[in-house]
Parts: sequence; structure tokens; C-alpha cells
Amino acid sequence: MAKDLPPISAGIRAKLDTERIARLATLDANGVPHLVPICFAWDGSAFYSAVDRKPKHAAPKQLARIKNITARPQVALLLDQYDEDWSRLWYVLVRGEAELVSAPAERTRALQSLRAKYQQYGPEMLTDDALILRITPQRVTAWGKI
Amino acid sequence: MAKDLPPISAGIRAKLDTERIARLATLDANGVPHLVPICFAWDGSAFYSAVDRKPKHAAPKQLARIKNITARPQVALLLDQYDEDWSRLWYVLVRGEAELVSAPAERTRALQSLRAKYQQYGPEMLTDDALILRITPQRVTAWGKI
Repeated sequence: MAKDLPPISAGIRAKLDTERIARLATLDANGVPHLVPICFAWDGSAFYSAVDRKPKHAAPKQLARIKNITARPQVALLLDQYDEDWSRLWYVLVRGEAELVSAPAERTRALQSLRAKYQQYGPEMLTDDALILRITPQRVTAWGKI
Repeated sequence: MAKDLPPISAGIRAKLDTERIARLATLDANGVPHLVPICFAWDGSAFYSAVDRKPKHAAPKQLARIKNITARPQVALLLDQYDEDWSRLWYVLVRGEAELVSAPAERTRALQSLRAKYQQYGPEMLTDDALILRITPQRVTAWGKI
């Protein structure tokens, strides 16, 4: 999976490193798509996203994105930025698999990356026991000014 | 479908009316999710989006979003805006069905709405024979500052 991923261009890597928001598509048990904006950290081989303490519709394990990836790990992640000058538009589409992270060392690294990227992640917003998603890309495509 | 949709709040309607970009999740024939940013016009009961002349990876009918909705009409559409002040975050999630529009009167109305909303849609960017998608919401949910 990650091993087979072709090299990611410098232009795409710059977006993965610096973009502040992405949109995550998951599928529910009936195969109906669901979408949510997520904060994320990219470590060079995977994306990490936490179920933080922003107000939620449901308890962490009952969140649609969590229930969905447990049943169907296949996801899509989109990075893009709108601009009224359409010659500047671009997007990066990542297709891959999402999984909850359980290994303590990997959880610690992910929490560190997220806290380093987002100053908003103080101890109350992102707790040490937060659920953490790993999204492993299988295919990365890009379009536009990138 | 549209008939059964509960009333949409004024706060959500304002976003549907004014947002410039949305992200569309579709499913391919294998049920793998795909995501793309789209320009759209909301007419009070449905979203319209055109396959315009921005450069594309494929001919219009071969585009993933078009092949996907023909096989599997169930889609999700997300409107949101990122802000570093997380108390200002919001999103609107629309779940519904997408279909290519063929009726000439509906096509004309959709083209007019898109051209009225986006000055970028000059005659070369959006042609009269463009493929047009209608996304009919079945469920609209919102989160955050809205």
C-alpha cells in the first residue's frame, strides 16, 4: 500500500505539509457517502487526524467518520483552495484507507505532529486519549496550479 | 425526495446562496469514494453544477464524477469555510442524489443561475451544451457557527 505509492511531487508535498484543512469522504454501512472537514498532519507517508474537543454531534466512537471507517476503510481526502482567479485553482485528491491508531508510540507521534501544526490544540482541545485516525494513501492525484 | 426535505434554516440557506465552492463526494462502480471541488448554484430546492471548460483530466462524459453518478446517484456535498479562529468554524453537509439534467428548460435555468453567480462563466468557460448535474438534497445537516 504505502510501499507501492509512486513518489509525490514537490508541489504536492508542499500542499500536504502546509494546508490547514482537508475534506474527508467516508462511506456508511449502506455505502452512502459522508463528508466532513478535518484538521490533519502529514508525516510524509500518512495523514493523521484526531477526534478533538470541538463540539460534536455525537460521542467520539459514535461519530459518522469513526463508525464508517471501522466498517469500510476506503476513504477519499481532498485538499484544495478556492480562488476567484480560476487560473490559480488546484486540488490534491488522496485515495486510501483509514484506520484508528492504537499503537502508543504512533499515537504519541501523531499527537505531537497535530499539536505542532495547530496552536489551537491546547490540552483541552486535544486530549491524550483522543481517537486518532491514520489515512494511508494508495493513490494521490493532482489538478491545476500545483 | 425534495418534497420530504424539512425546512432549511435561514442560516443554512444563506450559506447555500452565497458560498462559492463546495466539495462533492461520489462513488465509483466499486463503491470507492471520489472527491472534487465544484462550483454550484442553489435554486432553493436543488444544486446545479456544470462540467465547464476548466482543464480536465478527461472528456466530460468520462469524468469520474459523471461516470460515478450515472452508476450510483447517491452523493454528499459539503460546504464549509476554514478559519484559524475555531469558534467560527461551520459546515453544511448535504446528502442526496445527483443526476444529469436533460430537460432543455431546466438546463437553461441552470446555465443562467451559474452565469449569474460566477462572472468567470463567460461563453468559452461555460458552453450551452455543457453537461449539467442536479443534486437533489434528501438530508441537510449543519454544524458550528451557523
